[in-house]
Amino acid sequence: MECPANHSLDFLFTPLLQTSKKLVNSVAGCADDALAGLVACNPDLQLLQGHRVALRSDLDSLKGRVALLSGGGSGHEPAHAGFIGKGMLTGVIAGAVFTSPAVGSILAAIRAVAQAGTVGTLLIVKNYTGDRLNFGLAREQARAEGIAVEMVVIGDDSAFTVLKKAGRRGLCGTVLIHKVAGALAESGVGLEEITKRVSMVAKAMGTLGVSLSSCSVPGSKPTFELSANEVELGLGIHGEAGVRRIKMATADEIVQLMLDHMTSTSNASHVPVQPGSSVVLMVNNLGGLSFLELGIMADAAVRSLEGRGVKIARALVGTFMSALEMPGISLTLLLVDEPLLKLIDAETTAAAWPNVAKVSVTGRKRSRAAPAEPQEGPDSFAAGGLASKRIALVLEQVCTTLLGLEEHLNALDRAAGDGDCGTTHSRAARAIQGWLKEGPPPAGPAQLLSKLSVLLLEKMGGSSGALYGLFLTAAAQPLKAKTDLPAWSAAMDAGLEAMQKYGKAAPGDRTMLDSLWAARQELQAWKSPGADLFKVLTKAVKSAEAAAEATKDMEAGAGRASYISSARLEQPDPGAVAAATILRAILEVLQSQGV
Amino acid sequence: MECPANHSLDFLFTPLLQTSKKLVNSVAGCADDALAGLVACNPDLQLLQGHRVALRSDLDSLKGRVALLSGGGSGHEPAHAGFIGKGMLTGVIAGAVFTSPAVGSILAAIRAVAQAGTVGTLLIVKNYTGDRLNFGLAREQARAEGIAVEMVVIGDDSAFTVLKKAGRRGLCGTVLIHKVAGALAESGVGLEEITKRVSMVAKAMGTLGVSLSSCSVPGSKPTFELSANEVELGLGIHGEAGVRRIKMATADEIVQLMLDHMTSTSNASHVPVQPGSSVVLMVNNLGGLSFLELGIMADAAVRSLEGRGVKIARALVGTFMSALEMPGISLTLLLVDEPLLKLIDAETTAAAWPNVAKVSVTGRKRSRAAPAEPQEGPDSFAAGGLASKRIALVLEQVCTTLLGLEEHLNALDRAAGDGDCGTTHSRAARAIQGWLKEGPPPAGPAQLLSKLSVLLLEKMGGSSGALYGLFLTAAAQPLKAKTDLPAWSAAMDAGLEAMQKYGKAAPGDRTMLDSLWAARQELQAWKSPGADLFKVLTKAVKSAEAAAEATKDMEAGAGRASYISSARLEQPDPGAVAAATILRAILEVLQSQGV
Repeated sequence: MECPANHSLDFLFTPLLQTSKKLVNSVAGCADDALAGLVACNPDLQLLQGHRVALRSDLDSLKGRVALLSGGGSGHEPAHAGFIGKGMLTGVIAGAVFTSPAVGSILAAIRAVAQAGTVGTLLIVKNYTGDRLNFGLAREQARAEGIAVEMVVIGDDSAFTVLKKAGRRGLCGTVLIHKVAGALAESGVGLEEITKRVSMVAKAMGTLGVSLSSCSVPGSKPTFELSANEVELGLGIHGEAGVRRIKMATADEIVQLMLDHMTSTSNASHVPVQPGSSVVLMVNNLGGLSFLELGIMADAAVRSLEGRGVKIARALVGTFMSALEMPGISLTLLLVDEPLLKLIDAETTAAAWPNVAKVSVTGRKRSRAAPAEPQEGPDSFAAGGLASKRIALVLEQVCTTLLGLEEHLNALDRAAGDGDCGTTHSRAARAIQGWLKEGPPPAGPAQLLSKLSVLLLEKMGGSSGALYGLFLTAAAQPLKAKTDLPAWSAAMDAGLEAMQKYGKAAPGDRTMLDSLWAARQELQAWKSPGADLFKVLTKAVKSAEAAAEATKDMEAGAGRASYISSARLEQPDPGAVAAATILRAILEVLQSQGV
Repeated sequence: MECPANHSLDFLFTPLLQTSKKLVNSVAGCADDALAGLVACNPDLQLLQGHRVALRSDLDSLKGRVALLSGGGSGHEPAHAGFIGKGMLTGVIAGAVFTSPAVGSILAAIRAVAQAGTVGTLLIVKNYTGDRLNFGLAREQARAEGIAVEMVVIGDDSAFTVLKKAGRRGLCGTVLIHKVAGALAESGVGLEEITKRVSMVAKAMGTLGVSLSSCSVPGSKPTFELSANEVELGLGIHGEAGVRRIKMATADEIVQLMLDHMTSTSNASHVPVQPGSSVVLMVNNLGGLSFLELGIMADAAVRSLEGRGVKIARALVGTFMSALEMPGISLTLLLVDEPLLKLIDAETTAAAWPNVAKVSVTGRKRSRAAPAEPQEGPDSFAAGGLASKRIALVLEQVCTTLLGLEEHLNALDRAAGDGDCGTTHSRAARAIQGWLKEGPPPAGPAQLLSKLSVLLLEKMGGSSGALYGLFLTAAAQPLKAKTDLPAWSAAMDAGLEAMQKYGKAAPGDRTMLDSLWAARQELQAWKSPGADLFKVLTKAVKSAEAAAEATKDMEAGAGRASYISSARLEQPDPGAVAAATILRAILEVLQSQGV
């Protein structure tokens, strides 16, 4: 008799192989420590003293009910201990990593639940020789003591197209049996009936795995090797190699292949899924796959199944039955009818059973219409009029100036950043030039700033685009009601406040905020009655230029340059220079226009 | 302004680096496909058309409530979309992998929940420049449209001992804020109050990560390299390197170091945990760590915290905020009082929030006493008497014979298995010899077989030990009531039935069952009145020997030899030979004794 599960431990004693890094205390203590951690973090669970057994801590509330025990080698967490709870398992018996549990511990668990007053025990066992023998032996011993014990052996593997005598291996579908049996036991069904029902259910499912590489038992090296362009199909949950090695392909292609294999009638272990069938779909992380990829594979599985006319009643996506850190997934299909679905939907307190909506996956609307865009308020300033023309002139001057500065700004930026500050500002300038060619700009200041905000955000890009976008969006608000000098000063306040709040820079941090902040201080004067537009603006521009120049003595407190170690840089900050230059350009055009 | 999240995409365009294998359809489509998969499998969610946004599908039931939106770059699944549901988030906006979401999509999400009749929106944002700017911009735009929108920026990183201006990074603790805000919103609390409360809660937590290696963005190579004896401490969730690289150590030592770092008052970003403090502990899989190791680290964290006098009110263990497939964990500590704990305990339908018992972890009894062993029935046969002596003689003869056969059986086994069949049987023989030295064997057949079962199971080991254990346990049952010849025949039936049932071998499969089965057929004659002990037993032994010899022409149908490809082996099965030999030894002693 072969017990594949027991073989893995051989690796622990093979000194020549390089072992993989693991977060463990000792190779020998892995299974005990992991179970202890699970029990410590879940107050609904207790260990059975002297055994690698976890049981519901409310055992005494189960008088007259059927107890459900499962288990097997460790390394498949959260299976099985994560599925202990009301509505699922009563307890589990764990072996060492990938090794069947001890008969004595299985027997102790059976005795414990019997002594708590349960009326019989169902052992739910994955089909591996070692598990069958050890659970079987404990069962025979318990029966000899007069305890009613039944046993179902779960084989849901759909990998082998020709059946071996040993039968199909027990894989992730076992968790569905925990759920179904748990719901039946919770509702008071008897041992014989539960055994009969779950034996039927176990025949109506299939599981297939795929992985990008193997896993490694603590203290050993990976159990098989794959090259960079291969994936392994039909593997087990102990790092065993699979039935086929295929070339790397897209998620869609791999899922298609898996579902073809699992449902092909020429496969002796296929799931008899047909168009119109209702299924529960499990997309199980074998341990080390990113949840991003898990989602992508789940998406592919749903599309492929629905493309075959299969109705997905429920979809469970997560880590249920892992193979240590194996970076792969398994798909499980269970044929369901309404009564079975009720059992899948029944409440459970088991920690690792996910929250699943009690609604069919197939047939549900998966998107809603985008929200309505708000109506734009009427522009009280006629576009294309005199104001529009002046604004166009100002913007053109700003753009020309920025384009002329491209190389200078890039050079400044090379000292502290990635040297693209000029390029970024030129991109903004060209975007504004292009926009101006499309028609006259809005004449209303609030509308103008809002449009510019959207434009810069979209076309300037990067953090500068977002910061200018923020500045303009916030600055536009005070200009909605009024457009006099106090409103423009308030606009500057609002813009800088937003920039500071979300950008987390303050004056003195060697950023564009430095010059804008200096200008803002001067522009406060616009709030006083009878303030002079040009006098104040001229002072503001000079102040901004001085502030920009002053950044050359500053240590970077925020922004890209703050990552330069002990950065005391000898050139001014290019963002601050650009901002001062923009203000200077605005001043000059306005003056030349004699606004 | 620096946006670390955006940098990762640079790798996609670096043709010289080797990229990692991923289960995806395209690098560009990863974030969309993963979100689509999540929504497809969760009927409680819907996508917003034209945007990478997922929202509760029951939005219209939220009239008059506060909406909660979160999000950020993809690659942190199940965060954030897995936390959408009643009692947690209203929706999320996802960016490309490790990249901030688009402002337009954030704004669309805000508009969608506003148009569904919610009375205000709280944006829950992880503290990264790109996220702050883009969520901030969308917020300003939405406010300009008259929508009430607040924003909290979560920084729970405890890695940096000196605070940078950019503040602490947002990590796994953000999920706790989703929970607290969700519980408040569900209970009808207003926008301002929720904002105030969660801002307070966010200050009372800290998170620290550790990993065995980095992760890789689809289309790129890992972002940092670690040697085989190093672990990275204090890393972020975008594959950024951490604050310290430490030598590989035990789980206990690493957890100790993490908790020291997180709680040290000399660390500006520490959590002010003191003896007597109550905390919620999160043990978060960063993506690719085995759940075995996660449990071990959780165990270490519970022990270390309790050793410091900290009361663990709740412990959440699982994958909450991942960094793609990074094989590491983060620990999060949140200081809690009773009112806050009520919010953590509140119901939610969010798919990725685990079932957590509403009971304190600390102070709970974590084990229960082992069950009582059943009282042994009185042995009606006096041990040490004549029967006892005869049994000892039989067993000694069996042992001597098996020891003599060791090399022969090993040689037979080398042709088809791992060549240890003789060694295994010798181990059993020596165990029995040792046991016989301890005192006379039980004289009652049922007790004898039960004792031998326990002995072989424990000392013989492997599948053979389990199979003989099973045989003997089952065979003992019919001998409890009677010990006449029909009872012995029934014992043989029961033993073989159990062996066949749990071992899944049938006659003809080239196993030890072949000889035992042949003997059993002859022993049926014992059930007839007046049957002769020796005549029948002699026939049975001969038949067993013939059956053992016949296995040499059999293809292996079960057991170890079945894994030999197209196995037509030229030697008999060593297990079958051993079984026949045992029967012959029993016969010979009994005959010599003239029983």
